[in-house]
Amino acid sequence: MIITTTITQVQAQLSLARKKNKTIGFVPTMGALHEGHLSLLRRAKKENKICVLSIFVNPTQFGPTEDFTKYPREKKNDVLLAKKENIDIIFYPSEKLMYPPGYLTTVEIKNLSDVLCGRFRPGHFTGVATVVAKLLNILRPDTMYLGQKDAQQCVILKRLVQDLNFATKVFLCPTIREPDGLAMSSRNKYLSIAERKEASVLYRSLCLARDEIQHGIRNATRIRYLIEQNIRTLSHGKIDYVASVDAENLMPLNEIKGNVLLMVAARWGQTRLIDNIRITLK
Amino acid sequence: MIITTTITQVQAQLSLARKKNKTIGFVPTMGALHEGHLSLLRRAKKENKICVLSIFVNPTQFGPTEDFTKYPREKKNDVLLAKKENIDIIFYPSEKLMYPPGYLTTVEIKNLSDVLCGRFRPGHFTGVATVVAKLLNILRPDTMYLGQKDAQQCVILKRLVQDLNFATKVFLCPTIREPDGLAMSSRNKYLSIAERKEASVLYRSLCLARDEIQHGIRNATRIRYLIEQNIRTLSHGKIDYVASVDAENLMPLNEIKGNVLLMVAARWGQTRLIDNIRITLK
Repeated sequence: MIITTTITQVQAQLSLARKKNKTIGFVPTMGALHEGHLSLLRRAKKENKICVLSIFVNPTQFGPTEDFTKYPREKKNDVLLAKKENIDIIFYPSEKLMYPPGYLTTVEIKNLSDVLCGRFRPGHFTGVATVVAKLLNILRPDTMYLGQKDAQQCVILKRLVQDLNFATKVFLCPTIREPDGLAMSSRNKYLSIAERKEASVLYRSLCLARDEIQHGIRNATRIRYLIEQNIRTLSHGKIDYVASVDAENLMPLNEIKGNVLLMVAARWGQTRLIDNIRITLK
Repeated sequence: MIITTTITQVQAQLSLARKKNKTIGFVPTMGALHEGHLSLLRRAKKENKICVLSIFVNPTQFGPTEDFTKYPREKKNDVLLAKKENIDIIFYPSEKLMYPPGYLTTVEIKNLSDVLCGRFRPGHFTGVATVVAKLLNILRPDTMYLGQKDAQQCVILKRLVQDLNFATKVFLCPTIREPDGLAMSSRNKYLSIAERKEASVLYRSLCLARDEIQHGIRNATRIRYLIEQNIRTLSHGKIDYVASVDAENLMPLNEIKGNVLLMVAARWGQTRLIDNIRITLK
């Protein structure tokens, strides 16, 4: 496994691979790897000759009051985990390499970036889209693997790749969950024991809603209310939003039909958690 | 010469070239080719095995009151000129190919885009940066050739390429001028005979200023005033701006020193013309 901190070095490695017609799978992360990330790495490794993992806690996707400085940085453990998965290359750039003095460019995905989580995290998705545009240009992978847990990010990055004509394919992989249903997230470790216990209410509420939909309920307001009430009744979580949207373009739905995302974001103290499930109705 | 209107076809051609280790030179244009464009094409052809010309009148870089619909479209003549220069590929995409339904992404170069011409053409440089980001991803040229006449565009696109880590080099080529000094531009054909006669005042005023600088004047306000007064005295052109800026970052200069751009934009009727000269002082 090669750990590179420079663009020249990572590109030299990938250029060699490309010359041998080896396909390149790419998993962009902020590190603090958990089973969710590992599932992406396994799939990337399985489907490609070369698997590249990037680890970069991207400052531009954090708001001024957010957890950039306290975001977990666990390089040693991340490297061990990556080694176990037989990852070929870790790209581990510095902030200065990614945003040198004089840096001025942003990539914005209109409409999709200022709704849902974007309403509570202004600038977040522009930061994400910009850093991923850079990583795609640096690494030029055949396929990028993203976790469905970050549903809005998935929609935005698919749009980015399509709109700016990147040659990379985007594969979305299922959310990996703890035994009680809580979606794996690097932020779960911020939770107290009591908060951690309550946090699984998000997934349970989404499943409850899915059950009701499967029993024939199609009124989206009623479905969202059900989720909200369930979270409020069973936990101290403060809801940012509960949404029912079209899975392709994130447009709000009044009626549950087609490809639907049920999405939720809630806070326990300073810790903000998100979750979603996708439902397909004919 | 191959004229392609699809991404698949142009990429197939370029992929073949790349496999044979042929370098690719690229000249992005909006067509209505003149000697300025041809000088870029000649240099691209001379320095590369393959020369690609793109012709696309990009709607997103025109403001709502600007000349998008009346911008000259001269496909037949452009093809003839390109053939004469032994261009290998013309990429001639449709608006729908570049901006299909659902398109949402923009690339913005902060600070550089809302000054000078950007102040008079809001959104213009975001449109330019976005379409060039797309073209660079579609074509992946080794080198892109730009004309120094569009000085602000040159600075912005160099920044774009550097900030988003495109693998393309950017070469700036000297402005080509009519015998009386007027910078070649597709918009010159909008001018009446009287306006056309007057328009060379822009370059003459810039040269006058350069002479004064060479005679020791360093006060930028005085230099700008000289240019303004000269244009006002000798023509009916309405000045948008006269500027003296750092050639690398477009920051305004109070003192003429280092790499300096003297820039000017003025209108004759609906026709907006720009020009600039670069001066290097130790």
